[in-house]
Amino acid sequence: MLVDGKEMRSLWYEDDSLKLIDQRSLPAKLEIFEAKDENEVAYAIKEMVVRGAPAIGCAAAYGIAMAKDKQKAAEILANTRPTARDLFHAIEYMLDKIEYGEDALKAAEKYVEEIVGKCRKIGEHGKRLISPNARILTHCNAGALACVDYGTALAPIRMARDKNPFVWVDETRPRLQGLLTSWELEQEGIEHAVIADNAAGYFMEKGEVDLVIVGADRITSNYDVANKIGTYEKAVVAKENDIPFYVAAPLSTLDKSIKSGKDIEIEERGEEEVTKIFSWKPKKVRNPAFDVTPAKYITGIITEEGIINPAE
Amino acid sequence: MLVDGKEMRSLWYEDDSLKLIDQRSLPAKLEIFEAKDENEVAYAIKEMVVRGAPAIGCAAAYGIAMAKDKQKAAEILANTRPTARDLFHAIEYMLDKIEYGEDALKAAEKYVEEIVGKCRKIGEHGKRLISPNARILTHCNAGALACVDYGTALAPIRMARDKNPFVWVDETRPRLQGLLTSWELEQEGIEHAVIADNAAGYFMEKGEVDLVIVGADRITSNYDVANKIGTYEKAVVAKENDIPFYVAAPLSTLDKSIKSGKDIEIEERGEEEVTKIFSWKPKKVRNPAFDVTPAKYITGIITEEGIINPAE
Repeated sequence: MLVDGKEMRSLWYEDDSLKLIDQRSLPAKLEIFEAKDENEVAYAIKEMVVRGAPAIGCAAAYGIAMAKDKQKAAEILANTRPTARDLFHAIEYMLDKIEYGEDALKAAEKYVEEIVGKCRKIGEHGKRLISPNARILTHCNAGALACVDYGTALAPIRMARDKNPFVWVDETRPRLQGLLTSWELEQEGIEHAVIADNAAGYFMEKGEVDLVIVGADRITSNYDVANKIGTYEKAVVAKENDIPFYVAAPLSTLDKSIKSGKDIEIEERGEEEVTKIFSWKPKKVRNPAFDVTPAKYITGIITEEGIINPAE
Repeated sequence: MLVDGKEMRSLWYEDDSLKLIDQRSLPAKLEIFEAKDENEVAYAIKEMVVRGAPAIGCAAAYGIAMAKDKQKAAEILANTRPTARDLFHAIEYMLDKIEYGEDALKAAEKYVEEIVGKCRKIGEHGKRLISPNARILTHCNAGALACVDYGTALAPIRMARDKNPFVWVDETRPRLQGLLTSWELEQEGIEHAVIADNAAGYFMEKGEVDLVIVGADRITSNYDVANKIGTYEKAVVAKENDIPFYVAAPLSTLDKSIKSGKDIEIEERGEEEVTKIFSWKPKKVRNPAFDVTPAKYITGIITEEGIINPAE
């Protein structure tokens, strides 16, 4: 991705430590967080220095690579956040490679390159869905920040830049990850407007949205999709307005061990994420971080190997 | 409504001026704004010292009552905010009464008492929709603050208090009027939880919402409803989950001169309402303040004369 006109990734290994663009400071400030061992990587995942399922997986891979006790590191890292499939996939990948005698650091690097390569392919497959001057709605940040490079939902948009796309960016309360998307799009010079999440339906109903593309944290074997809270609402309203709704994700997001969305554990995060901007402290606040969009609302899942139609 | 255990209204006339609970300071602080003439009332409406369609109408009625030049006052007040039907209804009402020789201040008082009486009746009609321990979702603030007393959407909930209702309160970005609802419910001791707007669909889909009640800014002759941005999304998702979706509004909200929602002018408000909480200034922000919910998503409209079924 471009940052101040230069190619950059959201995390990389350098001088015996994992460097991460600190996503808590963005888009206000570009700061680099340094993690020297598995505990610091676990902290970075838990505190959302790094966020986005593929990037979390990559960070965890380096966390295991840097650890002395790989099994213990796997346990520590697995206990950071429950919803993203990639985290567990990365941990399994690393333990497997290490068991077969591979150098752990090289295995982590390979894992990251695979993720980046998959995102690029998602972009190539997805860009054909984007017509000239298409107006695309996205929710949360499924961009290069979330995926080391390219992004998932943003990869097709990046690659279709010559078609002059316009992006509606849901601000994505409570954590406002839409601003990360706005920051990425501005870095790339792609036209967009940020809206309150409540306004997405308004623009869909008015015919100002041609398609929706979002990322995914976990996809079940029947193609239900767990993603950022609010995704479900957008999918229902898109279907009601006959707007194609696409999910962009590497196949590693697919968890065949889970039958349907009903079996996905949804993380509820702290109240302060919601109340931070309030001048009033309600007695009770609920803050589910993800929701599940049933497969019937999904037009297609854009993967590195092509587009899957859940209805088929 | 109860405020610190005492009965209070959101606006009243006293010592030759209109006193208004300043809704810009709530819920953090209870402050009273004083408007001494039609220009100060127009300011209060424009700047959202007072908000909510019925309360805006009541404020405008006093604005005309206090003005020397009633026709000019009517013009000034009509140019404050475009969407709420009540504003124009109140202005017409006042000019009518004055033309027929009524005392302007008494006419304004009568207008307000009529509104309050209608809200009480809306509560009485609506409370039978609420079963014991019902879980009700509401959006924005259609409470006593918005209606001088009782509220529209909140009136049935207030009157069903002995049935132990629980209220899901959408925070309602960008202006967070949900916090006004939370403040009112806490004053009345009614259990509730505030959620990000994105989470409403999650709780609907999980079966934790039994019905939805919202207010209305304008209802067209075919029963399309203009209300706070985001209402449309909630209505679509409610229908998809077979959850009854009610609109509570006095009949004066009904604008028979408008055929359908497509003909309603939607106010777009300033970017800073959205960006105020951002640490990043996107190049482009869109901020429609209302949306239109087509009649087909509405189970019933709770009015002072009973419940209208738009499908009939």
